[in-house]
Amino acid sequence: MKIYLDCIPCLLRQALEAARMATDDEVVHRTVLDTVARMIPGLPLDITPPEIAQRVYALVADITGNQDPCYEAKQIANQQALSLYPGFKEVIAGSSDPLLVACKLAIAGNIIDLAQQASYGDLKSVADLALAAPLGIDDYEKFRKCLHDSSLILYLGDNAGEIVFDRMLIEEMRKIKDSEIYFVVRENPIINDATRLDAVSTGMDKVARVISNGSDAPATILSQCSSQVLQLYHSADLIIAKGQGNYESLSDEKENIFFFLRAKCPLIARLLRVNVGDAILKKQKI
Amino acid sequence: MKIYLDCIPCLLRQALEAARMATDDEVVHRTVLDTVARMIPGLPLDITPPEIAQRVYALVADITGNQDPCYEAKQIANQQALSLYPGFKEVIAGSSDPLLVACKLAIAGNIIDLAQQASYGDLKSVADLALAAPLGIDDYEKFRKCLHDSSLILYLGDNAGEIVFDRMLIEEMRKIKDSEIYFVVRENPIINDATRLDAVSTGMDKVARVISNGSDAPATILSQCSSQVLQLYHSADLIIAKGQGNYESLSDEKENIFFFLRAKCPLIARLLRVNVGDAILKKQKI
Repeated sequence: MKIYLDCIPCLLRQALEAARMATDDEVVHRTVLDTVARMIPGLPLDITPPEIAQRVYALVADITGNQDPCYEAKQIANQQALSLYPGFKEVIAGSSDPLLVACKLAIAGNIIDLAQQASYGDLKSVADLALAAPLGIDDYEKFRKCLHDSSLILYLGDNAGEIVFDRMLIEEMRKIKDSEIYFVVRENPIINDATRLDAVSTGMDKVARVISNGSDAPATILSQCSSQVLQLYHSADLIIAKGQGNYESLSDEKENIFFFLRAKCPLIARLLRVNVGDAILKKQKI
Repeated sequence: MKIYLDCIPCLLRQALEAARMATDDEVVHRTVLDTVARMIPGLPLDITPPEIAQRVYALVADITGNQDPCYEAKQIANQQALSLYPGFKEVIAGSSDPLLVACKLAIAGNIIDLAQQASYGDLKSVADLALAAPLGIDDYEKFRKCLHDSSLILYLGDNAGEIVFDRMLIEEMRKIKDSEIYFVVRENPIINDATRLDAVSTGMDKVARVISNGSDAPATILSQCSSQVLQLYHSADLIIAKGQGNYESLSDEKENIFFFLRAKCPLIARLLRVNVGDAILKKQKI
C-alpha cells in the first residue's frame, strides 16, 4: 500500500518515542522532532509507509547516536514471551484444533510493536483475550489447506518477543507437514523488529532456517532484499507475512501470501474493514 | 500547563483532520500538512497547547479558505444533544442527587470534541455509560459546598452540543442557589467550540448571561480575553472551566476554579494520574 497523509503525523510521533527510547536528553528529543518535521514537505507519497519509517528511524539513530534504542526492550520481550512458552504449549496441545490456537497466538504476539505504542500491557492477558475472540478476517481454513500442499515455506517475521509465538506456530505447522521452512529476520536493528540475535536467543533456529532479509526496513521491501530471500520469495509454495509493516510493504504483491497481524492503527483497520485491535488472518488475493 | 513535545505530532494530526473537514481537495490537505510541519521547528515550548492550536487552526483556515469547517458538525451536535435533553432531564429529576447526575452529564458532554477525534460515537450511550461510572477525580462535595456559597459564577464553556449538557447543569445549579451566572463562549469559530450562535440555538441564553471571551483560541487564554471577562474572572466566587482546552490554559492559575472534563489524551491522563476517558471534576489547588 502507498502511504496515506494519516501516516505522517504518526511517523512524527514514532520519531519522538524512538528518540525518548534512545536518550533522556530532552534537547535531543526536540532536535529529532524538528528534523523529522523538516523532512515532511519533501516526502514522496508514492512509496509505502515502512519505506518512510526506515528513513525516519535512520535519522533518529543518526541524531541520537543510538543505533538500537529498543535493545533492552527486545530482550525483555523475548524473556517475557519465553516464560509464557510452556503454558501456551499446553493450551495448544489441549485444544481441539491446535493449529488454529497457534495461529491466534502468533497473531496475538504481534501486539509487541513499539512503533505503535510504547507499552503493550500484560502479554499473558492479551494472548488469553485473543484466544477467546474470533478472527476479524478469517482465512484459516484456506491457510490450513495451503499448508498441507506446501513443501517450501517462507515465514517473514516481525518483532522480538513475538518471535516466540511464531516459533510455537511453526512447531504446529511441522505436525501438519514437515516442510522446509525459512524464517526471515531484519538484517540490522530497527525499532523492536527481530534480528538474527532474537531468533537465536528464542530458539527459532531450532525449528526453522533463519535468514536475514538484507535490509533494515521495518518491513519486507523487495527491492532491498537479498537475492537469497528474493529467490525463496518467488519459489515458496506459501509465504506467511507477520505484522503491519510486512502487510504495508506486500499488500499489492501477487504471491501466495497469508498475512497474520493485529490491525493496530485506525487507517489499516479502515482499509481492512475491521476494528482496531482485531486479529487478521488474511489470504492475499492473487 | 506548558506544551509538551507529545502535543506537536498531535497538532499535526489535528491540522490534517481540520483540513479534511474544510475541503475534499487532497492537494490542499498535503499543503496544510507541509505548512504546519514547517512551523514546528519555530514553535516555542513556553506557551500552552491551545495557544499553538490557535495558530495551527488559523493557518488551516487561511490555506483552505474555510473559516468554520465544523459549522455543520456543530449544528448536528446541538440538535443531537437537544433531542436527548427531555430524556436526561427526567433522569436528573428522578435521581437521588440531581446535581451530581447533572455534573456527570456535563462532563460526559465533553466527549463532543472534534480536535481529539473526528467522531464521538453515539452520544446517548456515552452519557449512559458516564452516569454509571465513578468520577476519575471526584471533588463533587467541594463543588456542591462552593456552589452554596457563590453569588457570582463564571462558566467557561467548551464545545457545541456539549453546551446543552452545560445548560442542564446550570438549571440544576439554580435549584441549589439562584446565583448570577455568566456563560462564556468563544468570540469566533474554532474547531467545534461553542460560539454565541450555539448558545442561542440551544437555549443557553435563557438560563445564563451569555458573553464572548473576545478570543478565538480553543481555550481561555487570559491575555486574549475581553476586559469584561477578565473582570468577571477575578471577581467570580466560583469558576467552572469545561474541557481540556480550558484546563490546559488555566491549570497554573490561582483562582477558585473547578475543572469539568473528560481526560481525552494520554498526556493529560498521565498528568492527572487517571485513565484516558475518565471523567474529571477537579478543584484547582490554590
